[in-house]
Amino acid sequence: MVYLTRRERFSSAHRLFNQAFSEQENIELYGKCTNPNWHGHNYELFVTVKGEINKATGLVINLKDLGRLVKEEVIEKLDHKNLNTEVDYLQGKIVSSEVIVVSIWEILFDKVKNIGATLHKLKLVETENNYVEYYG
Amino acid sequence: MVYLTRRERFSSAHRLFNQAFSEQENIELYGKCTNPNWHGHNYELFVTVKGEINKATGLVINLKDLGRLVKEEVIEKLDHKNLNTEVDYLQGKIVSSEVIVVSIWEILFDKVKNIGATLHKLKLVETENNYVEYYG
Amino acid sequence: MVYLTRRERFSSAHRLFNQAFSEQENIELYGKCTNPNWHGHNYELFVTVKGEINKATGLVINLKDLGRLVKEEVIEKLDHKNLNTEVDYLQGKIVSSEVIVVSIWEILFDKVKNIGATLHKLKLVETENNYVEYYG
Amino acid sequence: MVYLTRRERFSSAHRLFNQAFSEQENIELYGKCTNPNWHGHNYELFVTVKGEINKATGLVINLKDLGRLVKEEVIEKLDHKNLNTEVDYLQGKIVSSEVIVVSIWEILFDKVKNIGATLHKLKLVETENNYVEYYG
Amino acid sequence: MVYLTRRERFSSAHRLFNQAFSEQENIELYGKCTNPNWHGHNYELFVTVKGEINKATGLVINLKDLGRLVKEEVIEKLDHKNLNTEVDYLQGKIVSSEVIVVSIWEILFDKVKNIGATLHKLKLVETENNYVEYYG
Amino acid sequence: MVYLTRRERFSSAHRLFNQAFSEQENIELYGKCTNPNWHGHNYELFVTVKGEINKATGLVINLKDLGRLVKEEVIEKLDHKNLNTEVDYLQGKIVSSEVIVVSIWEILFDKVKNIGATLHKLKLVETENNYVEYYG
Repeated sequence: MVYLTRRERFSSAHRLFNQAFSEQENIELYGKCTNPNWHGHNYELFVTVKGEINKATGLVINLKDLGRLVKEEVIEKLDHKNLNTEVDYLQGKIVSSEVIVVSIWEILFDKVKNIGATLHKLKLVETENNYVEYYG
Repeated sequence: MVYLTRRERFSSAHRLFNQAFSEQENIELYGKCTNPNWHGHNYELFVTVKGEINKATGLVINLKDLGRLVKEEVIEKLDHKNLNTEVDYLQGKIVSSEVIVVSIWEILFDKVKNIGATLHKLKLVETENNYVEYYG
Repeated sequence: MVYLTRRERFSSAHRLFNQAFSEQENIELYGKCTNPNWHGHNYELFVTVKGEINKATGLVINLKDLGRLVKEEVIEKLDHKNLNTEVDYLQGKIVSSEVIVVSIWEILFDKVKNIGATLHKLKLVETENNYVEYYG
Repeated sequence: MVYLTRRERFSSAHRLFNQAFSEQENIELYGKCTNPNWHGHNYELFVTVKGEINKATGLVINLKDLGRLVKEEVIEKLDHKNLNTEVDYLQGKIVSSEVIVVSIWEILFDKVKNIGATLHKLKLVETENNYVEYYG
Repeated sequence: MVYLTRRERFSSAHRLFNQAFSEQENIELYGKCTNPNWHGHNYELFVTVKGEINKATGLVINLKDLGRLVKEEVIEKLDHKNLNTEVDYLQGKIVSSEVIVVSIWEILFDKVKNIGATLHKLKLVETENNYVEYYG
Repeated sequence: MVYLTRRERFSSAHRLFNQAFSEQENIELYGKCTNPNWHGHNYELFVTVKGEINKATGLVINLKDLGRLVKEEVIEKLDHKNLNTEVDYLQGKIVSSEVIVVSIWEILFDKVKNIGATLHKLKLVETENNYVEYYG
């Protein structure tokens, strides 16, 4: 079993915000991250799949297929977008890194199966000082 | 003459947009960077000052003074903010990296003089693939 | 279960040295790393905690709480210090990266529980070419 | 149990190519990576070993021993070489990152045992956007 | 005058070799870098142009135009290629970083003028430990 | 004229301290950087030389010669050393990055001439957030 990782990037606006809370409660909880006028990040997404090496190709899966899948299903929907208002699968959610990474997992898991590997891990880097990881 | 550089970071939302142009013209010019719902970046700002080494201290200027100045005058106004709508010295401007870096220069130049050095260069990194530099 | 990581940094002096050995034995064992006049590093510490996503906040735990805990309990005691002589919980120990990372684990484990998560992993980077990891 | 990682680097030429396929089939499979005139990479290899901390030394194993082993057994045979034609243990193989990392594992596993630790993981970084990992 | 930099990357095979010298002389001069079976690198190219900020756009030039130019004229001809044998404008040259960067300058200078800016500097990074810069 | 840069690294202990000042004055001036028990850093030194490309070699100078020179004259004297007490050419100086970089310049300038190039710039990186540059 070999693990293969592809990095992709997206630059997006967001805010941390729970509409069930008052503006003041959101500020106490999220501080400057709940700024109603938004802020943003250069996100890095590391998609790790696992599988046996295909003897004919020497590859777990074709990296081009993995890259295309991640770009079409994830990056094009998130890059240069507002994560709170413009992404179908994040609608109504609190768009923390934790929630985003779980949502991307749900989008990708079956589709990675379809190209012949198993999604093993997602790592989402928000700044050089913090990131989240998810294994399903 | 020794050159001393301090790095600071800020995470902000913005869009490229000229209100003199139609929405369609803005799209032709800026592509996805003009998304009206905003996007964002983790910016890195490198502030380079120059000066003689002070014989008593061994320093050009105290790095703590430079860091405090940049944080108070630049970072606190930009970090976790919307660059188009929330920053006094960017009001009415097209908030490209080029325009932001010149605006920061105007804010910092005299204030760097006041702490005993000369502002030499600003470098503003928007993504790992592009940055701007300004020497006044 | 989502894994959340916070990076913090500290710059410290140390030497590898076992007082049960002669100076010559220390040199044979540790080479230049046992220099009695010390050397030092910019250390990077990656603290990974795990937990369920809190539905009300969208977070595993508040990153500010984790950052504050790591800074107060670890960074303030290590940063700009001599690891051999100035850190209470490293007294009498060989301050290799291996020993430091286990000592930080013992300091942090219960305290991370108190802020609502489980310490999963510590990664301590000594140089760009070597690091250690510990899972308890 | 502590995990200790050493990074080493090598710069090599290679091509992805299965001699059982026609040139056209290789192109369809590997794209530009099968260029018969070769291309190349700066590879980074992260070698992670695990073990108990030796009470007398404070170390899992001596990093110098690990570095020397990896340099002699792996780096000297790969660095500034053609991976397809010049490396004994890659002869006749498809030199994808997946295959290389498994081949290095086979070379290193017993030899790491001989210096007192257990090989836990190899990570081979081909570009900033892709890498493979192997745990045996 | 603002300076705008775009980074692009290419992964290529090459060898340092002067056909006027004997094989032995090439070895004495270039060491392992003259390996006749090639080696390779992940190169990073930083293209810096300078110009006034266009008042209507807020930009020096459109980064998309610069990126497209560099990709078409430089990257497509170098990426996944053999620099010694497959690149028209490197034919018969010693493909050191110094020679490559000057050759890229000659390709790009007029073409950067055509998109409205002046080429100021090229930086070519061969490994994390060495790079060259050229200002024309 | 092409500019060629070589990076080398050293890990050292130091403190900022002016013996003409009282301990209290040193604290007011340097803060935690004057800790009498030392602290330390992983320093990065970027040595930039300039020269014409030698037509016979395609090189400004041989990178191996530059690397050897920097290692012998600078790195071996600084690496895993105490910069305040163990380095002949820093004796009695305030070992700030500014002073260190000027001292290295004085050591290297003539010696770079002797291997056929001109020292153009030194860049000394103390942490990811600060560095100094010197052009003589």
